[in-house]
Amino acid sequence: MMKPGGPFKMPPPRLPGGTGQSAVPQPADRPGLPISQRSRIPAFEVMRITDRVAQRRADGHDVVSLCAGEPSARPAPGTLKPAGYTGPLGTAPLREAIAGHYRDWYGVELDPATVAVTTGSSGAFQLVFLAAFDPGDRVALVSPGYPAYRNILTALGVSVVEIPVGPETRYQPTPALLDAAAEAHGPLAGLVVASPANPTGTMLGRAELAALSEWCSVRGVRLISDEIYHGITFADGGDHAAGGAGAGADSDRRGVTVRELDPEAVVINSFSKYWGMTGWRLGWAILPHSLVAPLEALASNFALSPPAPAQELALSAFTEESYAQRDAVVEGFARARQLILDAAPQLDWGVAAPSDGAFYYYSELGPQLARFGDSIEYARALLEGADVAVVPGVDFDPLAGQRAVRLSYAAGESAVAEALDRIIRFQR
Amino acid sequence: MMKPGGPFKMPPPRLPGGTGQSAVPQPADRPGLPISQRSRIPAFEVMRITDRVAQRRADGHDVVSLCAGEPSARPAPGTLKPAGYTGPLGTAPLREAIAGHYRDWYGVELDPATVAVTTGSSGAFQLVFLAAFDPGDRVALVSPGYPAYRNILTALGVSVVEIPVGPETRYQPTPALLDAAAEAHGPLAGLVVASPANPTGTMLGRAELAALSEWCSVRGVRLISDEIYHGITFADGGDHAAGGAGAGADSDRRGVTVRELDPEAVVINSFSKYWGMTGWRLGWAILPHSLVAPLEALASNFALSPPAPAQELALSAFTEESYAQRDAVVEGFARARQLILDAAPQLDWGVAAPSDGAFYYYSELGPQLARFGDSIEYARALLEGADVAVVPGVDFDPLAGQRAVRLSYAAGESAVAEALDRIIRFQR
Repeated sequence: MMKPGGPFKMPPPRLPGGTGQSAVPQPADRPGLPISQRSRIPAFEVMRITDRVAQRRADGHDVVSLCAGEPSARPAPGTLKPAGYTGPLGTAPLREAIAGHYRDWYGVELDPATVAVTTGSSGAFQLVFLAAFDPGDRVALVSPGYPAYRNILTALGVSVVEIPVGPETRYQPTPALLDAAAEAHGPLAGLVVASPANPTGTMLGRAELAALSEWCSVRGVRLISDEIYHGITFADGGDHAAGGAGAGADSDRRGVTVRELDPEAVVINSFSKYWGMTGWRLGWAILPHSLVAPLEALASNFALSPPAPAQELALSAFTEESYAQRDAVVEGFARARQLILDAAPQLDWGVAAPSDGAFYYYSELGPQLARFGDSIEYARALLEGADVAVVPGVDFDPLAGQRAVRLSYAAGESAVAEALDRIIRFQR
Repeated sequence: MMKPGGPFKMPPPRLPGGTGQSAVPQPADRPGLPISQRSRIPAFEVMRITDRVAQRRADGHDVVSLCAGEPSARPAPGTLKPAGYTGPLGTAPLREAIAGHYRDWYGVELDPATVAVTTGSSGAFQLVFLAAFDPGDRVALVSPGYPAYRNILTALGVSVVEIPVGPETRYQPTPALLDAAAEAHGPLAGLVVASPANPTGTMLGRAELAALSEWCSVRGVRLISDEIYHGITFADGGDHAAGGAGAGADSDRRGVTVRELDPEAVVINSFSKYWGMTGWRLGWAILPHSLVAPLEALASNFALSPPAPAQELALSAFTEESYAQRDAVVEGFARARQLILDAAPQLDWGVAAPSDGAFYYYSELGPQLARFGDSIEYARALLEGADVAVVPGVDFDPLAGQRAVRLSYAAGESAVAEALDRIIRFQR
């Protein structure tokens, strides 16, 4: 069933502990000039798997991919004008429109000058990390988590403190875990949180986020809140997430923004997920006033300006019509998610994270591990044997990720139904 | 004539020597959390001046801007498809099309796998600098030069070795200057060259580039060649540039690519200048094989993918029709350039760099300095008093830039004619 030596590129072996770093393989016959130490971060495996999916499709295979974290429902660009550079932090109308979005969704008033439009949330992360942290600073994040946090930080010389989390804390950090991390590693300069999180989909309720914010404020720790999946939330998930404090409050339904709780915190968000504009590469950061000038300096050197056609298209993101369209897309995610939850017993996997939001289902493989060894081998076998692509958990968790996989149900109901069917048949 | 205390933001004072760093001003009443040391790089002033130009235009002023390095003739996007993520180094068809461009223009065969599509040349610079250099490495570049080189390198902890250049070497580095720099500062890890250069427009001929490449090869120095202005060259400039060696060779007319001379060198280029796609943020790097995997790892974490709609549009850049259209735009630049060269005596400025290519005219202010003090004051007075925007040389040269300005003639013939007229009247 497995195709040994096939072109599916597997990640290099990862050392237990550490920050998930591994040497980039170099062709032995080309010594050449030196490659930097800091570039020895792992590639984001899901992007490579996506390449392999494209190859198999080109070879005539009918592949169902539950890999990529992007909605298939995407806005059509319509007619765009020829576009030149904009200001380094984006156009004034878009910065104002984003501030308006915070008024509409969260009841928060923002100075549009504190909105920095960036080249995707990726652009926001690198600029904010550069502006907030110097080499050697310690920044905490949870594992499993989005790999680019740790890989960008590592490449920028920041020391990553990984906090292993599991079902006990709904895969989210807590003040007690932060205390333990600071005691073990030394004082922290920053904390990155995500709600809904990638890969688990779990959310922080208002009380939980407030507790983290308070912990950071008291200790002078910069809190960075990745809110890229806000708006992609589910009725039952929201209740789980909010827990006892303010559960079900309508204003928290889309996710709680840290901006309401802590003016020194940084919010990072994007047009990629809720609005389905992945390929356009457009995101934003909400900054404390003190970070605006440093971010502008960095952006004007590192990026010049965010993509202008994307900024033009994004201006139409905040209309009633657009919200209604995107909420309908989220309803499709909800149906796809329900298919997975209903099929879970037949999947014969292990413990799954509560899928409060985003469009991810993260689960231990449980009994399947005995057959396939680890999640990398499982993902390879499933792709080559059943033409279903999933992401092995090692992308998100250097340690326990060998036992887990992430399914993205952004591909929609019918793709998910077909994939579940194939997985169940494949495992038989 | 000058408007003291006006909203035109001036750069903070720069210390002589060093790398042009200056502290980002912080509001005194908001201590907040720490800002990183490494973010204390200057903003690219031209972007701020562009903001001021927009303000004056909004106030009803008819401003002629010779600031921005972007052609006003831009491709219309036509109908684009909704776009998702692509591979981290771009789509296969675009990487192949770029390789085809090297065959057509330079007679160079490239493996498309060594072409990395990036988010503008800005995206290429940051990824290549990260992949090639570690903190503390020394990288040489010339002053005056494009400020983002030194600012990105500085923010990434790389030690910038600035080589002051002037008319003696046509504002380009030479092996003798590199020898002196290495002797003064220690061995170099890298050298960044640009031909045609920003802000001077001067070019390296084949012999000069070969000598630099040889100097680097022998010493294990990574050569990075910014070729973003290739194709924007002028008949008389080409002769100047090529000097005695191979002058006027047709294959060198567009600029000499370092890829022909040195397989370990890195080429950086973009769709922004010759193709006028500035706002789309799309560029590329040609890499030695050994840098491909590190760049892919970095790109998949720092960028995910370059903008997809831009990649779609760029596929039409390499047709006969497109080359013909863009060459016609370059002919317009040639006419605008000629207007400046003809007006030079009446401008009553000082020594100007030979404008071989790109769309820049870089000149010392000469007699005007006695009246205005320095280039910053000159630029401010000219904008507030005559509604003509030019960039003070301090953006490009922390030392001698106080005596020089850069005019971009990308705005076209009529804008340049009007601006020259206004400048001459303003100075009377």
